[in-house]
Parts: sequence; structure tokens; C-alpha cells
Amino acid sequence: MTLAHGQTYLAIPGPSVMPEAVLREMHRGAPNIYEGELIDLTYGLLPDLKMVAGTAHDVAIYIGNGHAAWEASLANVLAPDDKVLVPVAGSFGLGWGDVAQCRGIETDVIDFGRRAPIDPARVAEALAADTDHKIKAVLAVHVDTSTSAKSDIPAIRAAIDSVGHPALLMVDCIASLGCDRFEMDAWGADVMVAASQKGLMVPPGAAFVFFNDKAQAARAGLDRVSKYWDWQPRANPELYYQLFCGTAPTHHLYGLRVALDMIKDEGLEAVWARHEVLAKAIWAAGEAWGRGGPFELNIADAAARSHAVTSLRIGKEHGTRLRRWCQDQAGLTLGIGLGMSTEDDPKGDGFFRFGHMGHVNAQMILGMLATVQTGLRVLDIPHGAGALEAAADVIGQA
Amino acid sequence: MTLAHGQTYLAIPGPSVMPEAVLREMHRGAPNIYEGELIDLTYGLLPDLKMVAGTAHDVAIYIGNGHAAWEASLANVLAPDDKVLVPVAGSFGLGWGDVAQCRGIETDVIDFGRRAPIDPARVAEALAADTDHKIKAVLAVHVDTSTSAKSDIPAIRAAIDSVGHPALLMVDCIASLGCDRFEMDAWGADVMVAASQKGLMVPPGAAFVFFNDKAQAARAGLDRVSKYWDWQPRANPELYYQLFCGTAPTHHLYGLRVALDMIKDEGLEAVWARHEVLAKAIWAAGEAWGRGGPFELNIADAAARSHAVTSLRIGKEHGTRLRRWCQDQAGLTLGIGLGMSTEDDPKGDGFFRFGHMGHVNAQMILGMLATVQTGLRVLDIPHGAGALEAAADVIGQA
Amino acid sequence: MTLAHGQTYLAIPGPSVMPEAVLREMHRGAPNIYEGELIDLTYGLLPDLKMVAGTAHDVAIYIGNGHAAWEASLANVLAPDDKVLVPVAGSFGLGWGDVAQCRGIETDVIDFGRRAPIDPARVAEALAADTDHKIKAVLAVHVDTSTSAKSDIPAIRAAIDSVGHPALLMVDCIASLGCDRFEMDAWGADVMVAASQKGLMVPPGAAFVFFNDKAQAARAGLDRVSKYWDWQPRANPELYYQLFCGTAPTHHLYGLRVALDMIKDEGLEAVWARHEVLAKAIWAAGEAWGRGGPFELNIADAAARSHAVTSLRIGKEHGTRLRRWCQDQAGLTLGIGLGMSTEDDPKGDGFFRFGHMGHVNAQMILGMLATVQTGLRVLDIPHGAGALEAAADVIGQA
Amino acid sequence: MTLAHGQTYLAIPGPSVMPEAVLREMHRGAPNIYEGELIDLTYGLLPDLKMVAGTAHDVAIYIGNGHAAWEASLANVLAPDDKVLVPVAGSFGLGWGDVAQCRGIETDVIDFGRRAPIDPARVAEALAADTDHKIKAVLAVHVDTSTSAKSDIPAIRAAIDSVGHPALLMVDCIASLGCDRFEMDAWGADVMVAASQKGLMVPPGAAFVFFNDKAQAARAGLDRVSKYWDWQPRANPELYYQLFCGTAPTHHLYGLRVALDMIKDEGLEAVWARHEVLAKAIWAAGEAWGRGGPFELNIADAAARSHAVTSLRIGKEHGTRLRRWCQDQAGLTLGIGLGMSTEDDPKGDGFFRFGHMGHVNAQMILGMLATVQTGLRVLDIPHGAGALEAAADVIGQA
Repeated sequence: MTLAHGQTYLAIPGPSVMPEAVLREMHRGAPNIYEGELIDLTYGLLPDLKMVAGTAHDVAIYIGNGHAAWEASLANVLAPDDKVLVPVAGSFGLGWGDVAQCRGIETDVIDFGRRAPIDPARVAEALAADTDHKIKAVLAVHVDTSTSAKSDIPAIRAAIDSVGHPALLMVDCIASLGCDRFEMDAWGADVMVAASQKGLMVPPGAAFVFFNDKAQAARAGLDRVSKYWDWQPRANPELYYQLFCGTAPTHHLYGLRVALDMIKDEGLEAVWARHEVLAKAIWAAGEAWGRGGPFELNIADAAARSHAVTSLRIGKEHGTRLRRWCQDQAGLTLGIGLGMSTEDDPKGDGFFRFGHMGHVNAQMILGMLATVQTGLRVLDIPHGAGALEAAADVIGQA
Repeated sequence: MTLAHGQTYLAIPGPSVMPEAVLREMHRGAPNIYEGELIDLTYGLLPDLKMVAGTAHDVAIYIGNGHAAWEASLANVLAPDDKVLVPVAGSFGLGWGDVAQCRGIETDVIDFGRRAPIDPARVAEALAADTDHKIKAVLAVHVDTSTSAKSDIPAIRAAIDSVGHPALLMVDCIASLGCDRFEMDAWGADVMVAASQKGLMVPPGAAFVFFNDKAQAARAGLDRVSKYWDWQPRANPELYYQLFCGTAPTHHLYGLRVALDMIKDEGLEAVWARHEVLAKAIWAAGEAWGRGGPFELNIADAAARSHAVTSLRIGKEHGTRLRRWCQDQAGLTLGIGLGMSTEDDPKGDGFFRFGHMGHVNAQMILGMLATVQTGLRVLDIPHGAGALEAAADVIGQA
Repeated sequence: MTLAHGQTYLAIPGPSVMPEAVLREMHRGAPNIYEGELIDLTYGLLPDLKMVAGTAHDVAIYIGNGHAAWEASLANVLAPDDKVLVPVAGSFGLGWGDVAQCRGIETDVIDFGRRAPIDPARVAEALAADTDHKIKAVLAVHVDTSTSAKSDIPAIRAAIDSVGHPALLMVDCIASLGCDRFEMDAWGADVMVAASQKGLMVPPGAAFVFFNDKAQAARAGLDRVSKYWDWQPRANPELYYQLFCGTAPTHHLYGLRVALDMIKDEGLEAVWARHEVLAKAIWAAGEAWGRGGPFELNIADAAARSHAVTSLRIGKEHGTRLRRWCQDQAGLTLGIGLGMSTEDDPKGDGFFRFGHMGHVNAQMILGMLATVQTGLRVLDIPHGAGALEAAADVIGQA
Repeated sequence: MTLAHGQTYLAIPGPSVMPEAVLREMHRGAPNIYEGELIDLTYGLLPDLKMVAGTAHDVAIYIGNGHAAWEASLANVLAPDDKVLVPVAGSFGLGWGDVAQCRGIETDVIDFGRRAPIDPARVAEALAADTDHKIKAVLAVHVDTSTSAKSDIPAIRAAIDSVGHPALLMVDCIASLGCDRFEMDAWGADVMVAASQKGLMVPPGAAFVFFNDKAQAARAGLDRVSKYWDWQPRANPELYYQLFCGTAPTHHLYGLRVALDMIKDEGLEAVWARHEVLAKAIWAAGEAWGRGGPFELNIADAAARSHAVTSLRIGKEHGTRLRRWCQDQAGLTLGIGLGMSTEDDPKGDGFFRFGHMGHVNAQMILGMLATVQTGLRVLDIPHGAGALEAAADVIGQA
């Protein structure tokens, strides 16, 4: 019999669990888009978005998803035949590179596989070899949602600087913003892209490109930027409608207002700390399970693990089975493995992911872990003991 | 630091967790109350309410809470100076008796304390002594939400019959309807009262009185029933507004429609089975914790435990502390102890309750248990090992 | 063909049009009913309810509709065999009297028909004749929703005082509170009853009884008040749950918070003034239509007309036809005639009502009038010209 | 004093009035984006979108607004240095041309001013002169929301065909889809763009590009289409995420499902007929007002007027004043004039617009007209008599 009837917990790495208050605020008739409340609300979002991003520079809001943000970021600083360096630690790194290629941009991909973050030394090496500075930008995904690898952005910045290369550092924080610590200006990112549906706790449909003066200079040097992607009027509008190149995403703006207020009320440092503790609790459980069976955290090095998503390996005979049990018997939906298929496991059945981004607290994460623990037991999947105790210890020490 | 920011889980014994679909359906402008959709919808609720109650007889819907249902049920079958037998297994039994007394009804209370259900033998004994049949009704609470004691309604019916007493059997299923098995007609209950905010998964504000022909005969014998409480026009209205003695509780009716559909879709037997398995998982955990510390299920006899609420004893230095930790650090709100205070523990700090009624599934219950487990560990409250494993075993065997 | 697809306007005299902000605030999971936000919110409602009622005395909130408020008010001050004077200006006056009778209270009804308010002189006369003060209370409906007659409460108070009679003045403001000026203390009402779904703009399900010290003294003199109706613990609770004699109507409380904030933000005097202007605009249109056909305002004397509801007479061949056209062709739902049937028109087809209470503004009322105007024209119902111009003049002079 | 407190009516030409049922359905937690309900729901939208568009060909859904749809449509069939013909009947025609220019496309603009639709003869003439077929496409806005001019798409198709020119016919139906009759395949449009927030009654955030085989052939001939805009995988996805090039606009999809169901339930022909009658009622009123004052419909030729939006001229001293009165005193928000400024009236104060698209019925439109009528009267703006009677006649004959 199923025990899934009840409140479903969607623990996938985005869209994340939407706060009741965000959804409530979005439930409204269309507002006036020419004057009044919406206008003031929208302009008020900009400083808060920048605060979350750690930048004093500019932000452009797009109606779109993460792929739109990728495209927008590229459209503003790179022309066809320009060259970029794409150090890759998972599917999303490859994806951003792919979007660049489709724009006619030449991509030098360095693939670090599926179990490791970007190695800054290799970035430095590649840039050092680019003596005539053909490489215009380095595209680095902060947290690759597929592998859950977190790359060291300050170290990548340092690598670029160490060889005196002028390339822009463009960072994808889609999966990390509002979860893992990120400080755009302090860390020297020139462009940063993000989206609404993960750490920002708002339904999919809004995307963000943050950019500094160096990036803006690159923009100015382009012959042409398409109207919809042009970040300049969006970031510095003379008229309200320029903020969105047309009609505003009215309902998302209301939701975003509440989500940013929640982040400010808790405090960004506290938000990051919460994600860190909860992630460490998950890892502790995962390591315990792994000590007696096939359960394995995808990223071995804790410093290279995301605080927002955790990719797992459990063997192709177990992964999908465990996910199904959690969903069908217990009401917990886990993320599928993404970009992890191998010859031996073409459908990636041996992989799955925990999403733990945004509106997540201890009781949710403990419920997720306890459900997986129960699934392992019920399905007779070998696993080590003490997982929940280990998670409890992490939480207890917070 | 707190790890409570996220989706709060309200695990109190009512109001229970409201399904998203119920709340969504209730979010609407006022409907026409004279004709159209609402009228049809309302009449369609009646057979489904009766199905959930296990009766082919009548139901009256009241705008009100459980206390309103108590009052309404008494108003229709008892006059001042009538006498009732009130076997009591917790605060709510006392409460119903108190409502009767305030109506001028004489109450013979048999108190079974706070750790046991009603003993049918004592009911039989009391009725046997009532040779001139002054006792008009027996008021029995099926599940007393304070103690979580579940009384054996068929056995009480049998007790009444065994001594050939004509008293009505009136049953309070406020905490049990839609959670614990209850079959009004088969079990011989003459009147049954319930409310919307527990197993029926709708916000507080609607209450229900079910009654059979014998109860209706008692109604007919009264000199006077106040207009608002009179169940007759409500159950058999000539005009729509009589269903509610005035304006209908429009939004609750929409919510109730969805909740009843959910129950029908899952199947009432499956709903009961789900509650049973989850309750047993909770008990298994509780018993494990109790094997190494002060944690104790309030009701020792498993057969007398509710499937919808579980009362716990943990010692006055621990209870409130544990509740606070769960709420403030983890986002889980547990029920306070109710009616459990003693001289030694005047505020009932040593007691708390798990609510597990209605829209609850395995991942929620496992999250609740894992959070409590973590709290016990973090707060250094002595407890036995293996609680979650024990719960997992129950769930695994389902 | 129908032109009704679009936003329906429910212009019936309650439930009224619910503000988007009220419904939004009510869309939430169940809150903790033992501590936290809900508790503070609830206690904060009491002074605001009293402000709207114009009293410094007490208020008891009931889960219920207007009939519940009637019953509650009677239960607290009158015993069976007590006598009340019931001056009646419509169905609701009769209804309250009927509720009293069902409680065993003797009622002296003075019926002023269906086209006039209560005549205070007749009240004085009746009380003067009651030399031994058997009459304990006068039950007066401020605005009778059926006839739309508004009675002069200060004049009724004066009438009672003029003959030195000690009867309580009990007033039903269900249809008028938050619409027509009402000042409980200044006007000398001892008890006042109201409900949520009209001027208070919240779905049906909450009712209110306001009472002063004189009424409380009557309460104290009763042998017995049933627990659910007892206003004493509700108005002066030691524990939160006593406010509602059990579980709180959680979602209604959130809605009420927003509705009262809206009233405070606009200002109660401004709310009354808005209702007055809009009512006068409706009357001006109605009088214009009447100058060339059967259309007639039910109450001839403008001083005796409600600002919240307007009853109309149009002839039995026209009323239902017009209502149907408005609803089926245009998306406007008007109120049916209530309590207006005659031998000649047993179904009351010649009557209908405009509801204009609570969340109503000029564009809504003008839309209602223009739709009726169009219906009159389309259905070839004789009517005078200049109705909308007349309404416009009223609005223009505001 | 203001009479605006109540339900605001936003009568601007988009975003339009959102149906309660659409907003309700969008109020939900994030769904699983990998399997289950959302997937089936999404694929089910495609045939219904095509039905509304009158095409058996393809549709690509974009997260974006109307400008995104413009950009997407151009990106799939035109390369930099390609040439397009842009016959213009308002700001939005200019806007689409501007988006083309920013992509490096050469635009031949024929401007028909602000009071007339596109003249097909001039299109034929321009294409006839393009003997070497440099013009790859004709960009025609069906209804230009600024001027409310509706151009004759079949006649433009005929014009293209009459001179044997191979240019694609690309049509912007953003303001007309689901309001004014449009039949993509029958009328010979090769590409059509639309958005969610007008006739489709869903909040801004989703845009649509429909295309036929001829357009797809143009797509196939391009060297490069950027990944985000590429309509091919969106229209013919192998994997679900390709439908949206990344994360789906989950909540909009739920809203769109309800909106399309509403259109299907009413019937597309009936939807069009409703818009036609209501538009004609507005025109009739406007013409009546104009017979005694400065009020003037912007488009003189009824055949060239939109059924979804009506642009008006009233003189620079009156327009903004009237809009302000309607909003601040009556609760009705009208659209500002767009793209209508002149030297004499730099802020376009003499212009405004009625939006009457999507979820609009007779009582709404009559309310809008009656409010404007009242405003004209109150503000002493000269105007002819009989406007509402004229509107009533149109509605009555429907």
C-alpha cells in the first residue's frame, strides 16, 4: 500500500520549494503596468538583488529561465568568432559552452569530468598559452547542478590574474545564489547569471544578469546587441518598460519582493550558514550510508561540494528503485541523475540528487534523510548505520 | 543558530495540515447563494459525508467548531434536567459533559483517568443501576485528543445493549473521523459529531452532526429545539438556506468538496490503513526512545491508541524544551500537552502531542520523528536507540 | 448569444464582493492555535471591531452566520417565558422574532409591513402599555435586508426612554455594519449583532455580538447560558481558546484582519460616506427609471433607505426576466426578492435587490446600473430616461 | 471624496483581467518537472494553442513577453543583412521593425501613420519593386495596440501573392489572438507571434511563435540560430526540457491550461463574437460622445478597428484628467495613450485607450462606459448624448 497521500515534498534541485508567502503574494489580478505600486516595487528589487549577489554594479532582469540568462550574458559581451574558455565540471558547464557555440563563439572546453570542480591551475595554464589574448571570457559555473561540484571562483579569478590575462570572468550562479556564499565584487566576477526558481524561491520565469564596468565596456565594444538581450536599457532604464524590454513579468515581481524580504529578514549570512549546516548534515548521512554499501556522494572533496544540491551514486540497480519508492510510497520526490549516464548505465539509473536550496529547514532535510533511510532499509539496499545520528550531530552543533 | 527557516510543519492534533488543493479551491470570490454551482455542490456533499461516517441516516452541517457540534447534538435530543452518562477518557470527554451541564442536563461522569480508554463494563454497570432509565444518552468520545485514548465504540454499544438500556449512544468523532475506522450504523451509534479541521482537512469553521431515526425520535419528543441548533431542517431542507439556518459557509463548502474527493479517490479503507501504519510507526519509535529514557507513550495499550494523535510523556524538565527546540531550531511545531497538568507539573511541561491526522504521509511522519530524534540527541535527553529503524520497519511492512 | 463570459459581478446583498487582499490573506496553511502570530492577531481584532461598532464595551466573536448571532444575543439576556417587543420592517425582523420564539420567549410583534421602517412612536406606545415591565428587550433590525428599510435606532432608543421603560435595546446590524452609520454607545444600543459577510467583506462564517454593561447585567441575572453561546468568556477570555469556545476560525481571522485594516485605512467616516453617495446614485437612477414605467424603489422615504441594499419592485412579469438577462447575458447577478411574495405574485418575481455593501466603488455601481439600464431597454420594459445621468450627478457632486 | 475603494477594474490593453480560475490554478507549489502531471499537461497545451491560432503547423512556447516573441520569430528566419518590409500602423509595428534592425536586418518601413491600418496595395507596390527578391519577409502587426488599428491580413497575403513575391508573411497577433478573428493557415500567415497576457488571459511571462513549413524552410537555410531562440527543438522536442530550452515556466503552464479550457468551453467563434459585440458597443458609445464634443475614436473606419483595444482622442486638456478621475474617483484604470505624442501634446495627454480583451463581459464594458460617461459629465467635458443607449442597442441586438 502507498503512504504517499499527504503533503508532497519536492526535493529536486530546482524548481525549489516555494514559500507559501511568495505564492500568496503572486495570487492577484493584473496590476497597472504604467504607474503606481508595481513601478515602485520593481525599482525596489534592484538594490536587494545586488545585495544578494554581492555587487554594487548593475543587474538586468529577464523574463526567462537559466538558459535565457546564459544567452543574455553572452549576447552582451561576445560576438560571433570570439573565443571563450569553458572549464567544465558538469552538464551545465557544457550547456553554457554549447549556447556560446550556437552563437558562433569559439569554445575551448576543459572538461574536469563529473566528479571534480574546475581546477584553477588548468585555467591559468590555458590562459597563459593564449598569448595573443584571443580568449575574451572564461565561463565558469559556480555550482554545477548535475554533479553538485562547486568550483572555487576566487581561485579562478586569481588564476586569470596570475597570468595577466584580460579575459572576463563570467560566472553561473543559477544553482548557488542565495545558497552558497558568493560575493561578486569581492571575488572579481565580471558577469554573473542567476534565475528565480532555486535559492530565490520564486517560480521559474525570471532570470538575472549582473555585470560590472569591465563587462559593460565589452558590451560597448560590440557592433550589435539584439534588443531583447541588451542589458543596458534593462539595467539603466529611462522608462519602466525598458526594464523588461516590453511587458513586465508582473506576478513574478510580487513574488520576488516577498522572497527578497525573507532573505533580508533572515540575513544573507544566516541564509548561507543554514544551507551550509543542512548540506553538511546531508553529507554526514551520505557518508554513513556509504560505509556499508554502494551509496556514495558524487564529490569526494567536501570543499568542492555545493550547499544547495547533492549528487549521489548508488549503483544502477538501486537508484531509480529508491527514487520510485520515496515518491510512490512516501511522498518524497528526489531529483533524477542528470548527465551521469555511462555505457554501463545508459539511463543514469544509478544516480540521483537531493535538492536543498532556498526554503529548506531542518525538519525538511531530516524528513528527506529519514525517508531515504527507510527506503534503503525497505528495499534491502546495503548501507552503513548511523546516518541520521550523524546528521543530528551536525545539526546539533550548529 | 536557527535552522527553522523553510516550510513549517504543523504537527498538532488539529487544525491539521490543509492540502494545497483544498486551500486553492477555497480561494474565490463569493458565489451566488441562491442558485447555481454552490447549490449543487452543497447537496452533493451530503452523501459523501455520510459515506465517511458510515451511515445511511442524516447529517446536519453547522457553521461552528467541535464545541458547536457538541452543543448542537445535545440540543436536539436532551432537555434540561435530563440525565446523561459521561464515561471520560480525557479533557474532551469532560468538556462535552461540561457543555451538557451548562444546558441544565444532569451528568453522571465516570472518569477513567488520563491513561486509559472508556471501560465498557463500567458503562454497562452504570446503566444497569439506572433501572428507571433516567439516563437518556451515553456521551462517548471516540478519540480523546488530549490523552489520545481511543475507546471501543462497538463494545460500548454492546454494553448498553447487554443491560437492555434504551439510552442513545452519542459519539464524538471530532479527532477520529477520516483517520480511525468508524462505522456509525454498523457500530450502533445514534448520534455522531465531527468537525472540518482534522481528518477532513478543511480549515476550522464547519461542524457536523450525524443522527439516526432513534435520535430523531428523541428530537421529536422535545418541547423545543432552538432554531439555530435544530437539525431537522438542516438535514431535510425544503429551501437551501435551511441547510445552514441562514447564510451558507460558502468557502468551506468548496474546500470540503475537494477534501471529500481526495478521500474518495484514495478510498476510505486506504485512508484508514494509511493512518494505522503511520501511527504504528510513531508508536514503534516512541517505544524505542522509551527503552532508554523518560520518553513514554501516554496510552500503554496499543488497541486503545488513536491513529490520529499520540500523547506523550517525557518529564517536566524535557517536554517544553523539546517542543521549543523542534519549533525554533527545526521548523516543526508539535502539540502542547492538554489537560495533563499535575500538582508536580502545573503547566504540563512534561507532555506533548503528535498530530498525525488527515493529509499526512510517510515522509512527513518520518521527518517529524527524525526531528524529534535529533532534538533528543541535541538536548541530551536520555532515549533509547533504534527509533527510526523501528519506524522504518513498520513502514516497510506496509 | 451570451455576453456573460468574463468577470462576474455578484451584486447581491451578501455575501458581498470579497476584496482580493482578504482572500489572499486567507490562503494559508493552518497556523499554530496555541501561540504565536495568530494569537496576537486575534486580540488585535477586538479594538478594531469595537471601533467599527462605535462601542467601548465588549464584543464576542462566534463561528457562525447572522442567525447564530441572533441566537447568541438572545441566549445571553433572555430566558424562556421572557417577553420581547419585536417591531418588524421586513423578513429579518420576523426572523429574529422567530428565533426568539423557538427559544420559548414570548414575542410581541408589531409589523410595519414591507415598505416602511419601524415607527418609534408605536414602540413607545407598546412599551407604555407594558406597565409591569414584562418586556425585557426590544429587537430592532437596523437595516432589513429584505425590504431595505432602515430604521431610526436613536429614535427607537428615545422612544424607549420617553416612557421610562427598562427594556434592553438589541439591534441587528448584520446588513448595515460598515455601510450605514451606526454608533452603538452614542445611540444607546445595549446589544448589537453583526456578521462577516456583508460590510466586513469576509466570507460567511464569523458573527459578532457586541454588548454593554446593562446587557451584561441581564446576562448575570440568568440561571443558565449554554456554553457555546455564553459571551462572557468569549469577550473576556482567560485562555485563547475561550475566545471561540474551542478551535478558532483561523482563516477568517486572517481575512478579518485585512478587512479591518482596509476600513481603517479608508477611515470609517469615509466608508460611510462612500456607501451613502453610491446608494444615492442608485436611488437617483431608480427614481428616473420609475418616472416612465413600473420600476419602483421599495422604500419611498429616502431617510428610511439602507445605504447597503436596495429593494425594488418592477412587476411580476419583469423582475425575474430582468435578473435572468443581467446574469445570463451580461455577467451581473442581482439579489432575488426576499419575503416579498404576494397572492398575486407567489414567487416574488416582481422584486429584486441590489446589494451595494462593503467593497464597492463607483465603477462597480455604475456598471450595475448601466447593465440594468441595458436590460430594461433590451427587454422592452418601460422605464423613464436619464437614469445614468442622474446617478452621474450624484457621484459628481460627491 | 473618492469613490474608488472597491474592486478595481483594470481596463488597459494588457495585461488584461485575469480570470479567478486561472489565478487559482497557478497558486501551487513547484511541480515535478521531470515526470508526471506537468509533462502531460504541457503536451496537451500544444493542440489547443494551435486551434486558437488556426494552424495545423508548429508552435514554440517561450518564457518571455511579446518582445521576446518578436525576437524569436526573427531569429529563426532572418540573418543579419537580410531585408524585411515593415508596413506600420502604430508603435508596435515600429517596435518590431526596430527589433529587426537591432539584429542587423535591413528594414524598409512604410508608415501608414497613427490613424489607419496597413494598406495592402502599398505592400504590393513595394514588393513589386523588389524585383530581385531581397525582401525576405513582411512584418505585419494584426492589431497595433497603440493605435488600435487592425490590418487586413488576408489582403496583405493577397498583395504578396499578387506580385508573385516569395517573402514570408509574419504576423504579430499579440493584441488580437483570442479576441479578433485570426486564421493562420487559411489566411496564409507563415509565422505568427503572440503572448499570454492579453486574449489568453494569463499573466505576462509566456510567448508563442507559430510557424509553417515555409518558415521552417527559411529556418533550415540559416547558418545559425541561437540556442534559446531556436524554435525547432521547442516545437518538436525529443526531451521535455527542450520545449522551453531549460526549466519550464511551470506556473504559467497551469494557468494556460485553464485559460484554454475556458476558450474551448465557450467556443472560439463565440469568443470572437463576444469581443465583436462588445467592441461595437464601445464604438457606438464613442461615436455618440463624439457627436457633441472632442471625443473621437482614433480609427475612423470600423472595419479597421480592433475588437480588443480602442484608442481614443479627446484633446490634451481632457485625456489625462479623465483617466485620473476614472481611476482616483471611480476605481477604473484606463490605458494611457501610447506613441501618440505630438509637438503640441508631447506627453500624449489627449489620448487614452480602452482595453477590452479576454475575460470581459457586458457588465464590465457597460461599467467602463458608464464610468467614462460620468467622468465626462463630472469634469464638464463636452460630449454628445445617448452613448449608453447606443451601446445598449448594440448589446441588445446581439
